Amino acid sequence: MIYLDNAATTVKKPKSVAKAVYNSISSEKFGNPSRGSHDYSLNSLEGLFETREIIAEFFGVEDPLKVVLVSNVTTGLNLAIKSLLNERDHIITSDAEHNSVLRPLYQLEDLGADISYLPLDDKGNILVENLEKNLKKNTKAVVITQASNISGIITNLDYIYDFCIKNSLLLIVDGAQGAGTINFKLSGRKLPNMVYAFTGHKSLYGPQGTGGLIFIGDLKPKAVFSGGSGIKSFEREQPNMLPDIFEYGTQNIHSNLGLLEGVKYLNGIGMDRVEKKLKSLTDYFYSEVKKNENVVLYNELHENSVPIVALNVKDYSSAKVADVLWNKYKIATRAGSHCAPRYHESMGTKERGMVRFSFSTFNRFEELDYALEVLKKI
Amino acid sequence: MIYLDNAATTVKKPKSVAKAVYNSISSEKFGNPSRGSHDYSLNSLEGLFETREIIAEFFGVEDPLKVVLVSNVTTGLNLAIKSLLNERDHIITSDAEHNSVLRPLYQLEDLGADISYLPLDDKGNILVENLEKNLKKNTKAVVITQASNISGIITNLDYIYDFCIKNSLLLIVDGAQGAGTINFKLSGRKLPNMVYAFTGHKSLYGPQGTGGLIFIGDLKPKAVFSGGSGIKSFEREQPNMLPDIFEYGTQNIHSNLGLLEGVKYLNGIGMDRVEKKLKSLTDYFYSEVKKNENVVLYNELHENSVPIVALNVKDYSSAKVADVLWNKYKIATRAGSHCAPRYHESMGTKERGMVRFSFSTFNRFEELDYALEVLKKI
Repeated sequence: MIYLDNAATTVKKPKSVAKAVYNSISSEKFGNPSRGSHDYSLNSLEGLFETREIIAEFFGVEDPLKVVLVSNVTTGLNLAIKSLLNERDHIITSDAEHNSVLRPLYQLEDLGADISYLPLDDKGNILVENLEKNLKKNTKAVVITQASNISGIITNLDYIYDFCIKNSLLLIVDGAQGAGTINFKLSGRKLPNMVYAFTGHKSLYGPQGTGGLIFIGDLKPKAVFSGGSGIKSFEREQPNMLPDIFEYGTQNIHSNLGLLEGVKYLNGIGMDRVEKKLKSLTDYFYSEVKKNENVVLYNELHENSVPIVALNVKDYSSAKVADVLWNKYKIATRAGSHCAPRYHESMGTKERGMVRFSFSTFNRFEELDYALEVLKKI
Repeated sequence: MIYLDNAATTVKKPKSVAKAVYNSISSEKFGNPSRGSHDYSLNSLEGLFETREIIAEFFGVEDPLKVVLVSNVTTGLNLAIKSLLNERDHIITSDAEHNSVLRPLYQLEDLGADISYLPLDDKGNILVENLEKNLKKNTKAVVITQASNISGIITNLDYIYDFCIKNSLLLIVDGAQGAGTINFKLSGRKLPNMVYAFTGHKSLYGPQGTGGLIFIGDLKPKAVFSGGSGIKSFEREQPNMLPDIFEYGTQNIHSNLGLLEGVKYLNGIGMDRVEKKLKSLTDYFYSEVKKNENVVLYNELHENSVPIVALNVKDYSSAKVADVLWNKYKIATRAGSHCAPRYHESMGTKERGMVRFSFSTFNRFEELDYALEVLKKI
């Protein structure tokens, strides 16, 4: 079996990840982190802090308390959007977005907010240069993906950073596909006020149930969900400080200790080498599959791409091709719309979808060769 | 070390729980459950369904798709409250509630909703007979705990069921302390339209990151958070069906397979025996500690109580006592307010809090004897 659906979730993780989660449960040392005075509780509080520390360092952020740990990137994006934006705002997003960005924005639109969409060119690039002409008096934020989960194209964040700084806009970045695939830091240049959302179970190689938000700059978030906080229990509101304001209820120490090991694994290799490995797999697959005349490619080979190649075969539906790939050849890919409806509407693939191949550090060139050979036979 | 903080989280779990989570990661068989066509995805979808099935059966509910899996009970309560109630409603709750109920209701109150609180008598019992006189024209719901996380007293749900049926009210029950401690079914009698919220990591012995909502009757929830759903991706809204409407983003198969084993463990013993064991521990501890003249007890010994006894020693602050219990005797308890501020205000313990002892099926009478002896020395 060849697993090429890593953009959905990585199935092969470093062995240390499963072990860490196992130990966190079976050691019987990790209690509820909510400020008990015994070691069971303190162990968990410290474990969460270590996770925040390694995440902060990984993304080049100084203060670990600016790292909020949540259960997945969708939760994080909902929290950021619902906390920082409201029905009086104009918000600019793009046609490349996942439903984890689009649907929370649609919810806001239904309340009265005004949403503009940066269009895509015919190769799937977001036309960031259209930002300027979408600017309105009440524009509050840009909400945009770091990299498309279909084309793999990395968004020109530098351009967007400068635009947001110039116009005093908030930036919310969906890092679902970028975190762990791109050698990327939230430092080394001037940044706007921003929130970076990431997931743990994809290219950070953590278990499911992990992810987070990183807050940059001077933001005044308001609580969205609320509950027990372990501190300030007699106040009516969730404590108005990071990370507590978004960490309602019992935090998941078991899974987060797995995420910690996932990031350690990436640090052990070095993100420069991880990025190179992923890029070489992607470039190879793209270059080779381009020679297959039965294959329809929608994007160009990019200098800057996360390890995703989406395509179709002849005039077959993507579902049919993915079914054959799995049922006959045991190659796991992902067909359909990949929860990014506007992308497919832009590319004219709403009906047939695309077959997405996505790679991880554990994939080998031999696996890609096999997939490339199989694609010639369909 | 003696762990008596099981109402915060159970630290000792059945060995099968850690193993199941480990296997779910290390087997490399469990992908993203969001409707991929390959086995990795289907394994996860099936695993989640098995979890729903065992939870549904455990609580006596027929349809597993009425079980929504979320990351903790606080998330579940926020979703239920924010989905089904609004700023025009009057809602009845109680002074025994945890902040996971109170704070979402305060948020609603800040938007204009009207909240009434059933008071407690001097022994901590919720005066459910006060429901009638709190009824208003726009009363929409009762939101109430199944059992206090401080007194351990089980709420008279039968009375509340009938009240809600009679007055066509929605009932939302916070089952954080009740699930897995009480031999309790959502069947066998007429029920109002209701949502039962539970957590996985306490007395269901699952890992952290698990919990859920069970929907009974004819409810029309609206989406609160939204995101990728794997189906109906071209629709603007989160699919308007259970459980999808509340399961935004990638579901956590790894932790949920642990929860499945936690519930199997309880089924293996039988909930009648689990309840008896927990009750015998609680009754024993209560009866013995009552003989200690230095101990202040706030509640009576109840026929119906979850395994919790909260107390104070002489006129010491609860924090001081819990510190001595841990630092000198390695007994883990929980001091302070336990995130239930109105309870402590009612009982006059806002300043000093209480020391909470809470038990699990893994506790032994010898451990309680040791704690009882130690309490004589403080």
